[in-house]
Amino acid sequence: MVTSFNNNVPTKFPKLQPKAPNGPDLLQIERSKASFDVDALSKFTYGEEFLKRKDKILKILEAEPAFEKTQRFFQGRHERLMHAYEKDKRTIELSEELGWTDEDRYIVNLLYDQPSPYSLHYTMFLPTLKNQCNDEQIKLFYERALRHEIIGCYAQTELGHGSNIQGLETTATYIPETNEFEIHSPHLTSSKWWIGTLGKTANYAVVMARLMIHGKDYGPHPFCVQIRSLEDHRPLPGITVGDIGPKFGYNTIDNGFMMFNHYRVPHIAFLAKFTQVKPGTGEYVKPVNARLSYGTMVLTRAGIVNGSGLVLARGATVAIRYSAIRRQFVDLDEPRKWRNEIIETPVIDYTQQQYRLLSIVANAYAVIYASQELRDQYEVNQEQMQKGNFSFLADLHASSSGLKSLTTTMALEGLEDCRRACGGHGFSLFSGLGFAYQDYLPFVTFEGDNYVLTQQTTRYLLKTFRSLIAGKTNTEQKNLTTTYLSQYLQNPNTTCPAISGAEFLNPELILTAFGYRAAYGVAQLVEELDQNGRSWNSVLVDVARVCKAHCQLVLVQSFFVRIQQASEKDLGPEERKVLQSLAYLFALHTMEKDVAEFLVSGYLSAAQSKLLKRQVLDLVALIRPNAVSLVDAFSFPDYFLASALGRYDGNVYEAMTEYVEKEPLNQKVVVDGYEKYIKPFVHRGLQRKNDSKL
Amino acid sequence: MVTSFNNNVPTKFPKLQPKAPNGPDLLQIERSKASFDVDALSKFTYGEEFLKRKDKILKILEAEPAFEKTQRFFQGRHERLMHAYEKDKRTIELSEELGWTDEDRYIVNLLYDQPSPYSLHYTMFLPTLKNQCNDEQIKLFYERALRHEIIGCYAQTELGHGSNIQGLETTATYIPETNEFEIHSPHLTSSKWWIGTLGKTANYAVVMARLMIHGKDYGPHPFCVQIRSLEDHRPLPGITVGDIGPKFGYNTIDNGFMMFNHYRVPHIAFLAKFTQVKPGTGEYVKPVNARLSYGTMVLTRAGIVNGSGLVLARGATVAIRYSAIRRQFVDLDEPRKWRNEIIETPVIDYTQQQYRLLSIVANAYAVIYASQELRDQYEVNQEQMQKGNFSFLADLHASSSGLKSLTTTMALEGLEDCRRACGGHGFSLFSGLGFAYQDYLPFVTFEGDNYVLTQQTTRYLLKTFRSLIAGKTNTEQKNLTTTYLSQYLQNPNTTCPAISGAEFLNPELILTAFGYRAAYGVAQLVEELDQNGRSWNSVLVDVARVCKAHCQLVLVQSFFVRIQQASEKDLGPEERKVLQSLAYLFALHTMEKDVAEFLVSGYLSAAQSKLLKRQVLDLVALIRPNAVSLVDAFSFPDYFLASALGRYDGNVYEAMTEYVEKEPLNQKVVVDGYEKYIKPFVHRGLQRKNDSKL
Repeated sequence: MVTSFNNNVPTKFPKLQPKAPNGPDLLQIERSKASFDVDALSKFTYGEEFLKRKDKILKILEAEPAFEKTQRFFQGRHERLMHAYEKDKRTIELSEELGWTDEDRYIVNLLYDQPSPYSLHYTMFLPTLKNQCNDEQIKLFYERALRHEIIGCYAQTELGHGSNIQGLETTATYIPETNEFEIHSPHLTSSKWWIGTLGKTANYAVVMARLMIHGKDYGPHPFCVQIRSLEDHRPLPGITVGDIGPKFGYNTIDNGFMMFNHYRVPHIAFLAKFTQVKPGTGEYVKPVNARLSYGTMVLTRAGIVNGSGLVLARGATVAIRYSAIRRQFVDLDEPRKWRNEIIETPVIDYTQQQYRLLSIVANAYAVIYASQELRDQYEVNQEQMQKGNFSFLADLHASSSGLKSLTTTMALEGLEDCRRACGGHGFSLFSGLGFAYQDYLPFVTFEGDNYVLTQQTTRYLLKTFRSLIAGKTNTEQKNLTTTYLSQYLQNPNTTCPAISGAEFLNPELILTAFGYRAAYGVAQLVEELDQNGRSWNSVLVDVARVCKAHCQLVLVQSFFVRIQQASEKDLGPEERKVLQSLAYLFALHTMEKDVAEFLVSGYLSAAQSKLLKRQVLDLVALIRPNAVSLVDAFSFPDYFLASALGRYDGNVYEAMTEYVEKEPLNQKVVVDGYEKYIKPFVHRGLQRKNDSKL
Repeated sequence: MVTSFNNNVPTKFPKLQPKAPNGPDLLQIERSKASFDVDALSKFTYGEEFLKRKDKILKILEAEPAFEKTQRFFQGRHERLMHAYEKDKRTIELSEELGWTDEDRYIVNLLYDQPSPYSLHYTMFLPTLKNQCNDEQIKLFYERALRHEIIGCYAQTELGHGSNIQGLETTATYIPETNEFEIHSPHLTSSKWWIGTLGKTANYAVVMARLMIHGKDYGPHPFCVQIRSLEDHRPLPGITVGDIGPKFGYNTIDNGFMMFNHYRVPHIAFLAKFTQVKPGTGEYVKPVNARLSYGTMVLTRAGIVNGSGLVLARGATVAIRYSAIRRQFVDLDEPRKWRNEIIETPVIDYTQQQYRLLSIVANAYAVIYASQELRDQYEVNQEQMQKGNFSFLADLHASSSGLKSLTTTMALEGLEDCRRACGGHGFSLFSGLGFAYQDYLPFVTFEGDNYVLTQQTTRYLLKTFRSLIAGKTNTEQKNLTTTYLSQYLQNPNTTCPAISGAEFLNPELILTAFGYRAAYGVAQLVEELDQNGRSWNSVLVDVARVCKAHCQLVLVQSFFVRIQQASEKDLGPEERKVLQSLAYLFALHTMEKDVAEFLVSGYLSAAQSKLLKRQVLDLVALIRPNAVSLVDAFSFPDYFLASALGRYDGNVYEAMTEYVEKEPLNQKVVVDGYEKYIKPFVHRGLQRKNDSKL
C-alpha cells in the first residue's frame, strides 16, 4: 500500500529567531575586546603575499560548482568520489587557464580540504620522478606526468609491511637476456596496499621492489611502471589492482592494492638518477651520496608540521567562536547580563573551557611557527650541503622526525578536544570537525609511524650525548642539541631559581628548564643502556619520552626565536605582546602537563610546580579577552571551515537549520521504510482498538 | 564513448598464502603460553548463565540475514538506515516468537553492535513511561508501547540547550478552559534536537517542557505526546519534525528535531505519577520525594560504565591479536626465529606495544568489575531506600557520575590507542574499530557532559570534607569517601613507606596512596574556596582533577574488592593470580600517569616514582605471556568484532582480501568517472604522440 498524500514535501523550519542574545551580537562583544590588530597578526603569520593569493583563489573556488563543499555531508562514497574526480579535472583546467603555480594549487587543496583521487600524483609521483629520473626518464615519465598524460602513484607499502621498508616482499629480478625486470608478488602479504590514487585512477606507478640481480638481493629500489592501458584504462595483463575498501576517512581517494604476476618491464623503468643497473651485464652501480635525500624528508615533514598547526588552528577557531555563543547554566557568582536580564553564561567564560581552548590556540601558533623555523633551517642546510657541509643534516633530520611525531599527535588530540568542547553539536558533521578529524587521522601513522619515528630521534640524541662525553664533538659546530646537552653535562645538579609565578615568564628560564629535563632523560637512558646493560627494546617507553622532551624544547625555542627575530616592522608592539603571552602559555602549559618529569629530574620542586600551575591560569585569564580575535587571525574563510558552529558571523543556529533542511531524509514526509517496517506493528494496534470497540 | 569490453568483472585476488609464519601459527604459540584457564576467567567475569545465553543468541543472529554485519561497511546512510529498520523489525518478531527477555534483547544489541531507529523507544521511552505514568497512563501509553503499537522517543535536549535542563525553552501552558496543555517552541533555539528515534520513526514522544500554570513557571516536566498519525505516519498539524542530518557516527539512527506551534495536548499527556496538575483549577501538586529517581540514574550509569569496559576490551582484543601476527623490523638484540630462520619481530614483542596494550587490558578489566560493584551497590541502596534510609544515595550518585565521566573518556582514548597500535590497517574499516569509535563518541557528551559531571562529584566531596571538619558526619555511616577523607584528616603528613618496587604490590599501600592523593586535592580545593575566597568558576580545572582522583580510587578499590570477595569456587588460583597482576598493573600504571599529583602532595618521593615506573614495566613483562589469552577471555565472538584484524583464528590477511573483494568499486574493471574525468587528459597525450609521429 502506498501513502495517498504527496510524500515529496521537504521539511522547512518556521521562521523564528534564536533566543537573544544572538551569535553576531556576542561575537561583536568579543571582537571589541581585542588588544591587537587581527590583520597585522595574520600578515605576520602567513605573509601578506600568501593572504592575497588565498583571497584571490577563494573567490574563484566559491564561484565554481566543482568546488562546492556542502553536498559532501550527504553523499555516500561513490558520489563523493565522483565529485572529487570532477574537482580534480576542474583544477587541472583552471591551472592551465589561469597559470596556477604549485603554491596556488596548494592553496586550492588547502581550501577545498579533502583528499582527492589525483592527490598522490602530485604529492608523491611527480616529486619522486623529479628526484630519481635520469634525463631520458625525465622526458619519458616526468614531463608526460606534468601534462597529466600519465597519472601515477607511489607504491611502497605492502599488506604485510609498512614502516620497515627493508622488509618489503615484492621483487624485481633483472633478466639480462631481454634487458628487462620481472616484477613479482610472491605472497599474499606482498600485495601493495594503501597506495593512494592506485585503486581506480593511476595508469602508472612508482613501485618499490627488491632489486635482484644474478641471485643477489640489493634491497628495495624504485621502478616506474605502466599498470593500466592508456587506451581504455584496463589493468595490463599480469597485474591485479583495485581499491582497498572503506576507511575511517580518506574515502574520497582510491587507496589501492596491486599484485604482480611475473610482470615484465623494460630496463628504462628502473629509476636511474642515483643508482644504475648496467644493461646486459646487470652490473650494479651504487649511489654516490644517499644523504641528499634526507634533506627532502625534512621539507616534507616541515609541511606536515605546518599542517598539524593548521588542524589545531581550525579546531580552535570553530570551538572558540561557538563557545562565545553557546550558553549553559548561570554562573551564580558572576551572572552575565544582556539588556539588564540575567542570561546563561557563554561557555567561553568558564575557566575550564578557557584552559582547554586557549592552550590549543597556543599550541597552534607554536606548531605553525616551528614549521616555519624548520623550513628556514632546511634552506640553510640545503645551501650548506651544496657546499659539502653535512654537519646540520643529522640534527635537522632528527628534530624533523620527532616534530612530525609530536605535532601530529598533538593535532589529533587537540582537534578532538575542540570537538568535545562544542558539546553535543560537535558530533554533528555540520560542526565541520568530522571530516577534518577522519581525514587527518592517518597522519599519525603514515610518513613514519609516530612511535617508530621517536626511535630515530632518540638514537641521534644518545649518539650526540655519548660523543660529547667522549669529547669527540666539534664544539665549533653548535646546534640546539649539543648546546643543551653540554649545559647539562657542565652542571648536572642545577635547579630552577623561580620563587614566584611571575619569574616563570622568562624565556631563558623556560629554555633552561626544558633543556635540563630533555638532557636528564637522555642521560638516564644512556645510563640504562651503557651501564645497566638494558636492551634497546626494554627501554622503548623511555625512548619515546626522551624524544617528546627534545621536541617540546624545539617547539618552545622556535616560538621564542620567531618572536625575537621579528623586526618591529613585521610585528607591532601589541601583536608582539599577545604572541609573547601565547608563547609563555604554550611553554608553561606544556611544562605543567609533563610536570612529573621536571619534578623527578630534580629541576623543579613541588612548591614551584604549584606556582607554575597558578601562573598558567593567570596567563589564560590574561589572554582570554583576545580569544576570538586570536582565532580570527588564523584567517580561515567560512568556505574552508564548512562549519555551522564556526562561522565568522556567528549565525550558528540559522546555519544548523539550513543544513538540516538539505538532509535527504527530510525531502520526504514519511520515511521509506515505513510501510514495511513500522506500519505493521502500529496498524496491529489500530486493529486491536477497532476490535475492542466491536 | 562506452568502453567496449565487459566492464562488470569483479576483481579477485590470486590464491596465494601470506608469508610464513601465518596468523594461526602465531596465535597458537601465544595461546600455549597461558598460565590460566580462559573459560574459567570468562565465567568469573560474566557469569556462566550470561555466556550460555550469548552463545544461544549468537547462533540465531548468525543465521538471520537481517543481522548480517558485513554490508554496513559498503553502504551509504540511507541503505544502512533501511537495514537497521529491518533488524529492528526482525528483533521484535523474534522476541515474540522466542519470548526474549530484556536481557536477551540486550545481548542481541550488544552483538549486533549498531544503534538502530527503535533504540530510544527501548532505552528511554519505555523506562520513562514505566517510572512516570499513573495507572491510567500505564494502560494508555506504556502497554501500547510495549506492544510497539506506538513508537516513542524522549525529547529533552534542544538546539540551544543540552546539559542545563533548567534552561529548556519549550513551554507547556495549562489551559483551564479546555483542560489541555499548549506546547510551544518560542525561538529557533527551542527546537528539540538530537532526539534519537524522533527524526523519522517515532509517532509519540515524551517531551520535556516548562510547565506554565496561570503565568507561573514550574520548570521542565514530562508530557507524553502524539506527534505523528497512527494511520499514515504524517506529522500532526502544529508539529515540524525531521532528521538532524549526518553525524560523526550514529548514522543508523534518526536523531531528530521537533518544533511545536501552539500544539494542544489533552490533560492526560502530563505524566502524573509523582506530580499532578489538578484538572480545571490547575493546582500544582508537588512530588513527595524526587531522590528516588537518582537511584535509576545510578543504574543507567553502571550500564554506561560496563559499556566503557567492553569498548576497551574490544579494542584490546583486536589490537593484541593482530599485534601477535603483524611483524615489523628484526629486534637485533633478540631476533625471533621461525623454522630456524630469523623473522621480523611480532610487534607484540616490543615493550612499547606491550606497555600500551596491556595497560588497556588492565583498564578494561578494572572498568568492567567497577561497573559490577556499582550495580551491586545500587541494589543495596535500592533496598535501603525502600526502608527509608537515604544515607548511601549521595555517595553512590556522586561516584557514578564521576565514573561515567572518567571511564567513557578512558574508553575512547583506549579504543583510539588500540586502533593506532594496529598501524596502517587500523585505519581501514575492516579493522572493526572505525564504526565502534564513531558510534561510541557521543558517550563523552550525552547522559551528562563529562566535564559538567565532574562538578557534581567534586561538590559532594567538598561537602563531605567540610562536614567531617565540622564534626557533623555520623561516623557510623562509613563509606569510601568518609573513610579516606577521615584518614587524611587524622594524618595529613603521611608519606609512602615503599623502599623497593616490589613493595608497591600491596593493595593497602596502593589504596592509601590513592586515598591520600584524592583527599589532598579535596583539602587544597576547600582551602582555595573557603580560605582564599576564590570563585567556583576560577577553580574548575582543579574540580575536574579532584573528581578524577576520587574515581581512580573507586576503580582501584573495586578491582581489589572484586578479587578479594570472590570465592575459591568462582575464582581458581591461577585466574586469581593473573587478575591480581592486572589489578596491580591498573593501579600502578594509573598512578604513574598522574604521578605528578602524588609527588606534589608530598606522598611520593622522586626516588619512589622511579621505582614505580620500573615496577610497571616489570608487571607488563610478567603479564605479557598471557596477553592473547587475557583478551580471549573477554569472550567476544568474531560476529561481534566484525574485524579482519581481530579474528579468533588469526587469518588476518585472507580476511582483509575477502572483504576487499566485496568493495563496490572492485565490481567494475574501469571506474565510473573514467570517461569524463581521466580519459580526456590521457588521450590528449596519445594524440600528441600520434601527432609527433606524423
